[in-house]
Amino acid sequence: MIVDLSDEEARAALPLKWGAVEPGVLPAWVAEMDYALAPAVAEAVAGAVRRGLAGYPPFGDAGVGAAFAGFARRHWGWSPPEDASVVVGDVIAGIRLVLETICPPGPVVVPLPCYPPFRDVVALAGREMVPIDLDPDATDAALDLERVEAAFRGGARTLLLCNPHNPLGRVPSRTELQALAELARRYDARVVADEIHGPLVLPGPHGTDGPVFTPYLDVDERAVLVTSHSKTFNTAGLHTAQVVCLDPADLARLRGVLLPQNHAYSPLGMIAARVAWSDCDDWHAALVRRLGEQRDLLAELVASHLPDARTRPLEATYLAWLDLRAYGSDDPAAAALAHGVKVAPGSDYQPGLPGHVRVNIATSPDRLEAVVTRLAKALAG
Amino acid sequence: MIVDLSDEEARAALPLKWGAVEPGVLPAWVAEMDYALAPAVAEAVAGAVRRGLAGYPPFGDAGVGAAFAGFARRHWGWSPPEDASVVVGDVIAGIRLVLETICPPGPVVVPLPCYPPFRDVVALAGREMVPIDLDPDATDAALDLERVEAAFRGGARTLLLCNPHNPLGRVPSRTELQALAELARRYDARVVADEIHGPLVLPGPHGTDGPVFTPYLDVDERAVLVTSHSKTFNTAGLHTAQVVCLDPADLARLRGVLLPQNHAYSPLGMIAARVAWSDCDDWHAALVRRLGEQRDLLAELVASHLPDARTRPLEATYLAWLDLRAYGSDDPAAAALAHGVKVAPGSDYQPGLPGHVRVNIATSPDRLEAVVTRLAKALAG
Ligand SMILES: Cc1ncc(COP(=O)(O)O)c(C=O)c1O
Ligand SMILES: Cc1ncc(COP(=O)(O)O)c(C=O)c1O
Repeated sequence: MIVDLSDEEARAALPLKWGAVEPGVLPAWVAEMDYALAPAVAEAVAGAVRRGLAGYPPFGDAGVGAAFAGFARRHWGWSPPEDASVVVGDVIAGIRLVLETICPPGPVVVPLPCYPPFRDVVALAGREMVPIDLDPDATDAALDLERVEAAFRGGARTLLLCNPHNPLGRVPSRTELQALAELARRYDARVVADEIHGPLVLPGPHGTDGPVFTPYLDVDERAVLVTSHSKTFNTAGLHTAQVVCLDPADLARLRGVLLPQNHAYSPLGMIAARVAWSDCDDWHAALVRRLGEQRDLLAELVASHLPDARTRPLEATYLAWLDLRAYGSDDPAAAALAHGVKVAPGSDYQPGLPGHVRVNIATSPDRLEAVVTRLAKALAG
Repeated sequence: MIVDLSDEEARAALPLKWGAVEPGVLPAWVAEMDYALAPAVAEAVAGAVRRGLAGYPPFGDAGVGAAFAGFARRHWGWSPPEDASVVVGDVIAGIRLVLETICPPGPVVVPLPCYPPFRDVVALAGREMVPIDLDPDATDAALDLERVEAAFRGGARTLLLCNPHNPLGRVPSRTELQALAELARRYDARVVADEIHGPLVLPGPHGTDGPVFTPYLDVDERAVLVTSHSKTFNTAGLHTAQVVCLDPADLARLRGVLLPQNHAYSPLGMIAARVAWSDCDDWHAALVRRLGEQRDLLAELVASHLPDARTRPLEATYLAWLDLRAYGSDDPAAAALAHGVKVAPGSDYQPGLPGHVRVNIATSPDRLEAVVTRLAKALAG
């Protein structure tokens, strides 16, 4: 059910991921998947284009909020209101909007490593950032709540949470999130939860039960959710994401912004979102199974070709975080590129961190094998 | 060659324009045309969607700058460099980006009436606005250069120019623009020229020669151009526009912004842009002819049904500005809506201005006739 794209097909479908590499180089960097779109999404978008849909998006959310609520109910047992979504162009645009309009003044806590635009968007919103670095040698990669509390004590009133985590691949437990919520309540701080990877929680190794995803708003109703179907359904270029907010006054504030402050979503993306959240459960189940298999294959490949790599359990996302410091290269991503594979340097996610890379495993088994063996060669040479 | 959409087709293609009105109400408000897409644009976008293109846009401009340069050369005898464009999501997003990154500090001059997001984007960029109101009784609607100079003398260092003008439909002469350029040079001020309506300069009445469009950068190379194929080719929902800037340092600054500051353009829109600027000259010529006919029809309809309306020559755009103060209604747009036609209230463009409306004429002759007769009935009743 998951259809692998040929190199040529991938170059047509994914102009950034495949267009940024020389022919022959395998792209395992930006978070896009080398798979064909879910048929229902592809057909809905193609049908809309055939009917000439290229005009401004409609007022309202065109059912995107209700479709997401259905997905949340079916998959996570969480029932957000159907009318609590504000459509935005992208997740990061949504975070910018939320920071500009409804987050309390004061610094913003950003746990590191993080998706790099998290740092950019804090700067863009004119906010001070309080980074919380992860010690790469820490046994556990859980959020350090003592440092979060220290930041709140120091005046920070917003925290950007990535749940599940890119690039760590980690799914925080409900208890952990409840403790964060308790802290946020105590300091009257607001958590902005980016849950774009929420639908990408993987089964456990070899098809065993995996971890359970907790929508952060289910434990902290004062938080704001920013999410999109775009990562799970591979439609980032269609520009539709959503902000979900349970507070009616804040929702009204988000809906009442000046037109140019939230103008970047597309009618095609809204259609893709509605169909993805509503009509693609089977495709989604097949995807998660497939990504679980890729993750298991990665574990084998790393064990045989990169035995000194340190990894953390990849519980969610298709982005694996590898600690390659044992191989002595400060910049293994640069070495890898010279050996025909483009992975993302760890220092993009945690500035100054040497010897780490993020590897995108959402490709064919053959390509993944080539990615790991080339990476191993790069580090051997 | 210009294909009129049926009501049903228009509802599918233009969800904002047609979706915001009750069935039976004619939408003559937002700037979208009730015509089918140019075939080359429609085919290029449909083909890309068939090939699964939904991923992030590529690095670079994918030929959009070169395609625009070709259009400018063929149509206006102006040859901007092919590598002077930065792709952005929308024109107004481009203006926001330009204000945030390369415009000198200080207030921003906005001649009124104006496209309403002009005022929003100045506020959003945290700039003070210096409005220059047009006296609705002025014989000429030219930019008042004395007031522009006074604003520059008072500290303003940026001016938002709409060339040709929405909602006035006016094409400023080269001499006029040269005088503005001279002022800008004298005060070291920067003009941001929105020329999205540049390709929509109409023939004169009944097919006679029309006015000549002057690209503002052709008389002021320190200015910044923001434009898009989206208005002329009816593709606003695909989210691609461009900033054109002749200064290499500023261009580098625009290209070096943080990712989330310029992230909202789509690969489908880039394809539409390239094809529209390159391969659609015949369709464009037919469109301009057709809009000229609509404009001539409007003049007849107004003369017979709204003889006391004051109009200005509609030299460009498909948006007619009607002064209906003679009919005694402060809000003729509200009256019109009650009589089955949605036009845009003049006070949206110049706050506080009573008795004006903007009418979108880019529809079928039949619909345009119904628009004017309903408007007349609304004002009679
Ligand atoms: C944590 C996270 N948030 C958001 C995004 C996507 O952001 P956007 O929708 O702004 O492209 C990604 C993409 O990889 C991501 O990993
Ligand atoms: C003067 C002007 N600028 C820009 C736009 C379009 O703006 P955007 O590309 O941000 O939708 C319009 C649309 O009618 C316009 O009239």
